[in-house]
Amino acid sequence: MNKLIDLVNENLDRFMEINYPENIFKSMRYTVLLPGKRLRPVMCLETCRMFGGNIQDALPTACAIEMLHAQTLIHDDLPCMDNDDFRRGKPTNHKVFGEAAAVLAGDALLTFAPQIITKHSKNLGAEKLLKILEEYFQFAGAYGVIAGQVVDIESEKSEPLNPCETLSYIHTHKTADLFKLSIRTGAIIAGAGEKQLNIMTDYAQKLGFAFQIADDILDETSTFEQMGKTLGKDKAAGKLTYTNLYGLDRAKDDLNNLLDECEKLLSENGIISDVFSQITGKIRIR
Amino acid sequence: MNKLIDLVNENLDRFMEINYPENIFKSMRYTVLLPGKRLRPVMCLETCRMFGGNIQDALPTACAIEMLHAQTLIHDDLPCMDNDDFRRGKPTNHKVFGEAAAVLAGDALLTFAPQIITKHSKNLGAEKLLKILEEYFQFAGAYGVIAGQVVDIESEKSEPLNPCETLSYIHTHKTADLFKLSIRTGAIIAGAGEKQLNIMTDYAQKLGFAFQIADDILDETSTFEQMGKTLGKDKAAGKLTYTNLYGLDRAKDDLNNLLDECEKLLSENGIISDVFSQITGKIRIR
Repeated sequence: MNKLIDLVNENLDRFMEINYPENIFKSMRYTVLLPGKRLRPVMCLETCRMFGGNIQDALPTACAIEMLHAQTLIHDDLPCMDNDDFRRGKPTNHKVFGEAAAVLAGDALLTFAPQIITKHSKNLGAEKLLKILEEYFQFAGAYGVIAGQVVDIESEKSEPLNPCETLSYIHTHKTADLFKLSIRTGAIIAGAGEKQLNIMTDYAQKLGFAFQIADDILDETSTFEQMGKTLGKDKAAGKLTYTNLYGLDRAKDDLNNLLDECEKLLSENGIISDVFSQITGKIRIR
Repeated sequence: MNKLIDLVNENLDRFMEINYPENIFKSMRYTVLLPGKRLRPVMCLETCRMFGGNIQDALPTACAIEMLHAQTLIHDDLPCMDNDDFRRGKPTNHKVFGEAAAVLAGDALLTFAPQIITKHSKNLGAEKLLKILEEYFQFAGAYGVIAGQVVDIESEKSEPLNPCETLSYIHTHKTADLFKLSIRTGAIIAGAGEKQLNIMTDYAQKLGFAFQIADDILDETSTFEQMGKTLGKDKAAGKLTYTNLYGLDRAKDDLNNLLDECEKLLSENGIISDVFSQITGKIRIR
């Protein structure tokens, strides 16, 4: 896992070179290179490896997904959104570069990321490259991550009619969709078949959901030092979160049950992955 | 020209259907469907026709470019950018839907636009489709429109060392790049050769530059009713504009000289286009 993380960091550093106009590239680079777990790109590379692909082929896509993830962080942190001052232990993008630059850096990443894929994955051939871009557009846009963020913001303004269903929608799109993008593109690059793609999509949905439940739990139970961002805001605001809705004990049970299902899904289908075992292990909360 | 505009409007209406979550699609649709000249999509369709292509093949790309143009308007109008309340005679996106929704609508359009291209242009084949997407990423992103906007914002904060060069950079990227995207993709869809592509890129650069000079002139000389947006702000703020830098008379001369060059470029190369004649005619200021 650490080897994959190093590989991602090396390549992110390489892809995020500073060009003119310097300020926009500096602002993009700042958030993309903040220290992070690189979970999404690692999942992309590992899925590619699991299905017999060459991880070098998945590197541009893996890095592009981390850039897209950074884009969502930059815009979610804006004053008009969650208004957060810290992210990964550092000041948020707009705190360093100003609001206008943060909006533009996010915009730029949305086209820079797929440009990295097309520029550096020519060897995959046009057909496969196009498939990957279609996945990117689907999960990055109004049917994906953004749908989740929109419903999240709306649920803060007025209480949803069906909070359980709404929360499930938010978690599916805001979090699980980027997991699906990572895992599905890794599988597509390796040339996995439809059946394998379906299994891994199911896996990504469960893992993404579990990850978000864990995040909600940690928001309530950990410290700024541990998480690198301001915590407890959601709880205090009575925001729609898994722990606010179901309580801490039920949240922990559901989290660990989902992770059990994830592990079962792989073992039942004869898929062995040390990296995914480590990921589920890290998300688990006892 | 009016037939092409109608065709664009019909298809924009069709592509911008409202899905769940409704608010994001409503917000995207609002700005994309504001009444406008549809200059960019018309140029895309007309270039495709000029080089022997079928304009039906260029419709998704033409509409996608109008969506991208709407995206730049939504984000440029935000309070942290130009802070504009009116656009095309109507309240700006964030005035109607709020700032968070406006940021997200712009984000969504950045991936929705190329998704429209891939979904509805399958008949072009993967190779050509990929070429069009590459053009989109290049001109929409940090090397294109956004580069122009970044340098524009920076030039407001501190006076640039070389104002003429800086203004030329801003106009090239903020305005001419979307003209290049429109015209180049139209030519690529029609299967135009490298020589034709170069001529039309040169043409797009000159036309885009002329268009921006005309916009700077009109900002100073026309009324809110004529333009549908608040005017004179740039002049008052001493902003870097063509008229502030060179004066009104020189601006008019340069504009009309550029338009002459545009017309010469087509006639010298035996390219006849009634639509482009109408466009240069409309931009001309006596």
